[in-house]
Amino acid sequence: VSVADFLLALIAIFVSAKLFGEIAERLKQPAVLGELIGGVLVGVSGLNLVDPRTETIRLLAQLGIVLLLFLIGLETDLDKLLAVAGSASIVAVVGVIITFAGGFAVGQLLHLSQLVSIFLGGALTATSVGISARVLSDLGHLRDRESQIVLGAAVVDDIIGVILLTLIGAIVDGGRVNAGAIARTAMLAFGFVVVALAVGSKLAPLLVRTIDRIRVARGLFFASLIFALALAWVAQRAGTAIIIGSFAAGLVLARTEKGKEIEREVHDIASFFVPIFFVAVGAAVDVKTLTMRDVMIGVLLAAVAIAGKFGAGYTAPGHGLRRSVIGAGMIPRGEVSLIFAQIGLAAGLLTAGIYGSITIMVIITAFITPLVLRRLCPQCAPDELSGASELVMDAPLEDDASSS
Amino acid sequence: VSVADFLLALIAIFVSAKLFGEIAERLKQPAVLGELIGGVLVGVSGLNLVDPRTETIRLLAQLGIVLLLFLIGLETDLDKLLAVAGSASIVAVVGVIITFAGGFAVGQLLHLSQLVSIFLGGALTATSVGISARVLSDLGHLRDRESQIVLGAAVVDDIIGVILLTLIGAIVDGGRVNAGAIARTAMLAFGFVVVALAVGSKLAPLLVRTIDRIRVARGLFFASLIFALALAWVAQRAGTAIIIGSFAAGLVLARTEKGKEIEREVHDIASFFVPIFFVAVGAAVDVKTLTMRDVMIGVLLAAVAIAGKFGAGYTAPGHGLRRSVIGAGMIPRGEVSLIFAQIGLAAGLLTAGIYGSITIMVIITAFITPLVLRRLCPQCAPDELSGASELVMDAPLEDDASSS
Repeated sequence: VSVADFLLALIAIFVSAKLFGEIAERLKQPAVLGELIGGVLVGVSGLNLVDPRTETIRLLAQLGIVLLLFLIGLETDLDKLLAVAGSASIVAVVGVIITFAGGFAVGQLLHLSQLVSIFLGGALTATSVGISARVLSDLGHLRDRESQIVLGAAVVDDIIGVILLTLIGAIVDGGRVNAGAIARTAMLAFGFVVVALAVGSKLAPLLVRTIDRIRVARGLFFASLIFALALAWVAQRAGTAIIIGSFAAGLVLARTEKGKEIEREVHDIASFFVPIFFVAVGAAVDVKTLTMRDVMIGVLLAAVAIAGKFGAGYTAPGHGLRRSVIGAGMIPRGEVSLIFAQIGLAAGLLTAGIYGSITIMVIITAFITPLVLRRLCPQCAPDELSGASELVMDAPLEDDASSS
Repeated sequence: VSVADFLLALIAIFVSAKLFGEIAERLKQPAVLGELIGGVLVGVSGLNLVDPRTETIRLLAQLGIVLLLFLIGLETDLDKLLAVAGSASIVAVVGVIITFAGGFAVGQLLHLSQLVSIFLGGALTATSVGISARVLSDLGHLRDRESQIVLGAAVVDDIIGVILLTLIGAIVDGGRVNAGAIARTAMLAFGFVVVALAVGSKLAPLLVRTIDRIRVARGLFFASLIFALALAWVAQRAGTAIIIGSFAAGLVLARTEKGKEIEREVHDIASFFVPIFFVAVGAAVDVKTLTMRDVMIGVLLAAVAIAGKFGAGYTAPGHGLRRSVIGAGMIPRGEVSLIFAQIGLAAGLLTAGIYGSITIMVIITAFITPLVLRRLCPQCAPDELSGASELVMDAPLEDDASSS
């Protein structure tokens, strides 16, 4: 890849992300949906300016998701998250079981092999922390109690998803999966989070205090960034997902005295890298090779994905509406689903068509979530209006400057 | 390259850049020198965590230099630059002729082939706009008249360097270089700058005004970024250097009503990517294969590089001291020298040893410049103290907070 091609890919990413993000917002949809659709247009079956299979785009997209989770961690109150840990875990576990079973059943119904059916099940399990948080934030709900449950459950989802990935990887490699292997993988994944939070809580304030003595430009920002990248790397090495590492880094740094300052600085760099991830997701869809059958499978998977998580929301405490909000918040799928799809594709298990079906499922879930939440929304007043919430559903286009 | 390796490379880049940048500043050296030396330590012959030959690091380093020149363009007053255009052009042309002849002579003295001697000459011609501007800014001089001449001459240098590169590329490919080819290449390179400034000056205010109507997050920042990347891409396509394109983009955007705001936002993103470039430069040095002879050649090249530009400074108007400041400001070599070295290495013309010699020359020039400028400095009061200038040479370490 020449420098000129790389610059062109970046131009295509930012133009499509901002142009379709803008169109999405004018249509009262979250900007992330525009980025996904913009990605399809500049991607492999569109203008072919952005190829997410090239190493650099792939790595920058990964960095985008790492930074997104770091930012979400920074915006999350760990105490509030721990307060809902019980409810969140139940929602997560029930949701994972229903959707995994549902995805597996779809595969079997379509006479796909058992292994492919397992991949489909796995791809439906994990709510996308990134997309969920962005949709909730776009609607001004990120700090609600319901949103805390969604966020907590989505994180638990991710960890379970990573465990599934490890186990499926072992099966693909011809290994046998027994109770011991499952227990070890699970302990590693959850153990990392507990250790990262415990050690990180001690280290982070020390780090922040040391930085005050340093004279290099933007020391606090770079120290935080290095901390997040290091935890992401350790997470990967410990056998869990990189995004869990950067999320944990955000959680502990948020509790230091400089938490707000770090959040502001990370926000700027994240806004550069995050669109690369979402455009790359869309760009991977090869529309030309998609058959009607692939599209129908995608719709079917989306239906199972939506129903499963919506149902899981009903295991949460509280009255019906709150439960519905939680269920709706859990709908979006994203990075973990796409990692399942990519691994399956690379291993030669999934066809390009099924890969497309999974991506269609991701796009549908991202599309449907704000629609459902908005229907539920007029009755649940947001705690506070965030910067992104000027696009509240009932505000007419003309007076969006005077959000009240 | 796996995501884990990429994260590790980024961690190594930022840790070494900030750690050695900090040490350099405590030793009253510019931070950029620390970044170069830190790069050697984490590079191919050190810890081997950062390999600038991998595609992603190479492309991110290029993006770093594109953003650095964009930022320098934003900080530059085009009118002041045009006011010194005559003096700057003379300094540039004289400097290029002296150093090219000097480098060529060194090659011939060492009985290297004519083509290798041409490469050595070419590698010495262009002052690094990036390193020069950073050193001058570190010392609080970036907006002096002398600095404007240095900056202008360095830009003209870069354009001449690119013309040389194109011509040498033609020779390497077995073509013949005649007066017509030289004239065409030169017209393309200078023509691009003139057209970019003329068209850009019309387009930029329109762009800035349009952005006010857009609702997506950070619209102004992304519009400016896209504008800079697009001009860099066009510059490459037009046969000149990408850095000339982003520098021109900065110059025209600086003149719009939002120039200061854009500069602030670009500064943040540049501070992420620029260290990647400087660490990558250091990381490319393979210390293990360097012989004593390579080091001596590097020192000899540096001596010629320093003497040549210092001499060229004396063609500038003004009294002796001002001329010395201009000559000293022209000393740093950087990106263009390294591009010469890389192309020569890739074409099999230069040995790894000679590549190392050129990199040593770059490091020596970066090292010597602040020392020389500081000797000249007590007598020339800076126009204003920039943020970076709190490290003025005489302030003791303890009271660096109370820069006056």
